[in-house]
Amino acid sequence: MTVAFAGERGAFGELAAKEYFGKKAVLAAQPEFGDVFRSVARGRCRFGVVPIENSLAGSIHENYDLLLESNLHITGEVLLRIRHFLIGNKGASRRGIRRVFSHPQAFAQCKKFLKRFPHLTVVPVSNTAWAVKKIRNEDLRDAAAIASQQAAVDFDMQVLARNIEDTRWNTTRFLVIAKGPCFPALGCTNVKTSVVFSTKNIPGALYKCMSVFALRDINLHKIESRPVHGRGFQYLFYLDFDGDAREEVQRNAINHLQEITTFYRFLGSYPVDKPRDPVYRRRG
Amino acid sequence: MTVAFAGERGAFGELAAKEYFGKKAVLAAQPEFGDVFRSVARGRCRFGVVPIENSLAGSIHENYDLLLESNLHITGEVLLRIRHFLIGNKGASRRGIRRVFSHPQAFAQCKKFLKRFPHLTVVPVSNTAWAVKKIRNEDLRDAAAIASQQAAVDFDMQVLARNIEDTRWNTTRFLVIAKGPCFPALGCTNVKTSVVFSTKNIPGALYKCMSVFALRDINLHKIESRPVHGRGFQYLFYLDFDGDAREEVQRNAINHLQEITTFYRFLGSYPVDKPRDPVYRRRG
Repeated sequence: MTVAFAGERGAFGELAAKEYFGKKAVLAAQPEFGDVFRSVARGRCRFGVVPIENSLAGSIHENYDLLLESNLHITGEVLLRIRHFLIGNKGASRRGIRRVFSHPQAFAQCKKFLKRFPHLTVVPVSNTAWAVKKIRNEDLRDAAAIASQQAAVDFDMQVLARNIEDTRWNTTRFLVIAKGPCFPALGCTNVKTSVVFSTKNIPGALYKCMSVFALRDINLHKIESRPVHGRGFQYLFYLDFDGDAREEVQRNAINHLQEITTFYRFLGSYPVDKPRDPVYRRRG
Repeated sequence: MTVAFAGERGAFGELAAKEYFGKKAVLAAQPEFGDVFRSVARGRCRFGVVPIENSLAGSIHENYDLLLESNLHITGEVLLRIRHFLIGNKGASRRGIRRVFSHPQAFAQCKKFLKRFPHLTVVPVSNTAWAVKKIRNEDLRDAAAIASQQAAVDFDMQVLARNIEDTRWNTTRFLVIAKGPCFPALGCTNVKTSVVFSTKNIPGALYKCMSVFALRDINLHKIESRPVHGRGFQYLFYLDFDGDAREEVQRNAINHLQEITTFYRFLGSYPVDKPRDPVYRRRG
């Protein structure tokens, strides 16, 4: 079983894939998110793992768009606690660092740390682990990367600072994607369904769509609006709600939703992931 | 009257400020969005102009967050049709270009163009006009910038390709911000109100908040969710709806909303901007 993720060894996508599939999976690094979707769509990989939202930095819109374009399904989710490390070459000193390479989301999650060192120039790159690889391959002495501890281990690099993320709540939600839907065993209690739809441009249209769920006591988890490409400010809505799409109540809600939307697509029903980190457990 | 915008001469923020305030305003370029908010909050500039969403690339989350942190108000909006130009030094040829500098949002709006030239390396910088300035100041021959036509004029540079944005619907909505709210004349028909709130974490909470408006036939324009910093996946909702907050129906809706939310803040009531571009007019 091959699982695609974006980036390099030590990328957070790889950590999420390991968390979800364990040791049985063969992991295939892809250059970018688009390549993860393509490799699954073309059958080269059975599953893909992509980030969809971060508790500090918000949604990764590119992957919402790719999900729709690719026609793939969501078969699972992983909540991964994100700890950032400042990583340099062996022998590099923290004082000599002038540039920091990482993904823009990582900079957004380490704002407080970066504010303490205003002389540092941030250089955005497409992946955190790729930043570590670049610094090692080019033997840069004045540069560091922000990435996972695993990336420091995998590339045999030096850790210059640890846990530099703004808060200990820093968590990224990854989606597991596959060609077809893959429902959890019937009777599973903790299941979530994701759909995407667009409404008629009339007053109360979105409200009516939400009433479909409220009237049936189905709890909503998340609603995300994305502009329809090429249509000015018209929106597509991505919605996560409680329950399996094959159960009667959810099936009725979905039929009702289809009556009142101009576009609808089912993305997947999958087990809800619970954060494993102790800071979460304390809050229940 | 001084108006702050982010970037350099020729930045889209400057074009939006000119569109809204005309020739009477003195425009003050600021390095980043955060500086625009700070200069207004500290009274150095009376108004600021910042982008909030683009019809292709989606919301600019940083500015939603800054709006809340800064305690400023929205006093107007500008819809600006965004046309991107590929800009190089005088005498540079399109064939010799290897690197393209611009803001990540500009890359997201010119995906099709960039796909046609896969040998080009994209280098993200903090502002489109700043990219033009960098290429001129460093006299780079192998690099071009994606920016406005105005930036090419202001920096006396050469246009290598014009209108390279993915679709002609490419429009950015800018907000005009100020210290206090600044209501339009009473009786204005085309007014919009923006608020931000968070709900109790119970089933149907967001639905109840939306019913406050639906039951009073108040049309919603946009809803945007942002994670509450440091609270895992709990959300703040930014909502735009029809009408002036001082009118009776809207006042009742807002009082009702405050009853059922855990946090509420009024951001502003301001005249709705209509797109001036002919492609929009045709659709009404």
